[in-house]
Amino acid sequence: MASEENLIERISRAIAGKGTKRNFSRNQRLRLGIGDDAAVISINSRSDWVLSCDASLEDTHFLANTYPADSIGYKSLVRATSDLAAMGARPRFFLLTLALPEERAGKWLDQFLRGMRRAARLMGIELIGGDTTRYLAISISITVIGETLPGVAARRSGARPGDILYVSGGLGKAHLGLALMRKGASLKYARQLQPHLYPKIPLDLGIWLADKGIATAMMDISDGLSTDLYRLCRSSGVGARIFAQDVPCVQILPAIARKLKGGNVDPLKMALNGGEDYALLFAVPREKTDLLAKAPGASSLAAIGEVTREKTVLLVAATGRTYTLNPGGWDPFRKK
Amino acid sequence: MASEENLIERISRAIAGKGTKRNFSRNQRLRLGIGDDAAVISINSRSDWVLSCDASLEDTHFLANTYPADSIGYKSLVRATSDLAAMGARPRFFLLTLALPEERAGKWLDQFLRGMRRAARLMGIELIGGDTTRYLAISISITVIGETLPGVAARRSGARPGDILYVSGGLGKAHLGLALMRKGASLKYARQLQPHLYPKIPLDLGIWLADKGIATAMMDISDGLSTDLYRLCRSSGVGARIFAQDVPCVQILPAIARKLKGGNVDPLKMALNGGEDYALLFAVPREKTDLLAKAPGASSLAAIGEVTREKTVLLVAATGRTYTLNPGGWDPFRKK
Repeated sequence: MASEENLIERISRAIAGKGTKRNFSRNQRLRLGIGDDAAVISINSRSDWVLSCDASLEDTHFLANTYPADSIGYKSLVRATSDLAAMGARPRFFLLTLALPEERAGKWLDQFLRGMRRAARLMGIELIGGDTTRYLAISISITVIGETLPGVAARRSGARPGDILYVSGGLGKAHLGLALMRKGASLKYARQLQPHLYPKIPLDLGIWLADKGIATAMMDISDGLSTDLYRLCRSSGVGARIFAQDVPCVQILPAIARKLKGGNVDPLKMALNGGEDYALLFAVPREKTDLLAKAPGASSLAAIGEVTREKTVLLVAATGRTYTLNPGGWDPFRKK
Repeated sequence: MASEENLIERISRAIAGKGTKRNFSRNQRLRLGIGDDAAVISINSRSDWVLSCDASLEDTHFLANTYPADSIGYKSLVRATSDLAAMGARPRFFLLTLALPEERAGKWLDQFLRGMRRAARLMGIELIGGDTTRYLAISISITVIGETLPGVAARRSGARPGDILYVSGGLGKAHLGLALMRKGASLKYARQLQPHLYPKIPLDLGIWLADKGIATAMMDISDGLSTDLYRLCRSSGVGARIFAQDVPCVQILPAIARKLKGGNVDPLKMALNGGEDYALLFAVPREKTDLLAKAPGASSLAAIGEVTREKTVLLVAATGRTYTLNPGGWDPFRKK
């Protein structure tokens, strides 16, 4: 079974970095190509550009008949822009490829666009191009372009042993919303559905961390902490030890737990393996952690563990027992 | 029935140009937003960037079981890059969103990537980012980034009455290839299939025209001359009169005509209405037409008519009779 990472590596090996014969000026230098959250290009003495693309597909990422159209428009743009947050980039521009069935081109599209506009305004990102096509299903692809000061974009690859690992906020909330949607949740659960349907991303925190050069490695948690922490460690050539009781887990009210398979729900599992939280995961050298008190959203930050020299990712349970934490998050190419 | 243009206008009205509150430096100025072949952003004193996105979708743009996988990879990148040619931009970077069924992730993907790499090398464009997902059908979206000297990108909107209209080469070839594919063409017709499966785009010509500032308006002919000439005229607020006998039509050998519905094929109709030729359509002031002798591919250029003040698009037939030329090209949102 091909995983998404394996595919990206194959694509990268097959194509990336070979087509530059004609390039007519080298003043726009590629700082970082395929493989991180986004590519980074130096465009002038004051700025780098950060670029990424992201797909949102009917039946894979959303169900068009059960999700509000405006949430699909909102979330598809937020998902894409999360890769800019992960690099500490300010959102600037986006391009939208939108394929949809004829019957979605009316009222559905209006609502979709309303949601997308709301996300665009919230995040300060401007639509500059698009392509539309009729198609058998709704297929959305968004390319986002962001900006950083030269050389400050945060990569996945700089974490060093001893660094403290942080997450920017509670995990598992989006998964709880997804689980409720699957159970046919009503408006009664609007507050619990919010993180799944209308996620918010910590853009200001990402920008602050990159501008100050505080994080040695950073990425967004889109596929679950267990998967994304594994990726960050692999990119950095390190391991990690995190503590279960320090992971900020979603709170699940008893009534909601009952609605979800009779109460048999584990907030920690949701926090570790649930996808789409779009929180930031980042590593900070021990001597710089004090500076985080001034970070945007500082009160939500949680230190969950530390970076280790051993290249394994370990979870220390509340009991004190240590387990290997295997990537268990959401990979669209791995069958459940 | 919603047309593609109508959709783009709706999307543009709903979203474009509203999200700039957070923009942190204005030194990267948006010169041209949604609505032309591509967006243009001034990035430094030596360069503008030109950006566009384009979708290639299974069953809409290609049939995965009858088309060679490498031609799908090749052509999807060429299609996208054609929008850069249309602006006179040098291709630089691209991002690939690729959704595909699990069973395509093996050998099919290898061949697809081989075709895409060939196109990337031919056009000098470099892959810098991607997103992959499992999906029910093959869905490709590509964002291309090109470069021009500051302010030279060729728009659709500058044609003036009296300008001479040119196309960069023979039209209808791609449509002939498509017609043969539909009849189940064999390798015997490889030469005729080439323009449909492995199109070439006149990048050097586009760059030359933009750098010299010779074309007052330019675009690529992706949806058929009749449709794209109409678009160019509408953008420029002008009309056109073209001459049937000056339109460079595909040659159809008798044996091929017989294969296609018993010989009942009209090269002029194919040239006017067939899509995907990716030739350039451009307008040149009469006093500058002599300069075209030095253009790359000058021998293939054809003057097909002129720009008029009256906002209609007219076709003068070989008989001397004049007809209104209605947009008859390929619009993915218009049912056949």
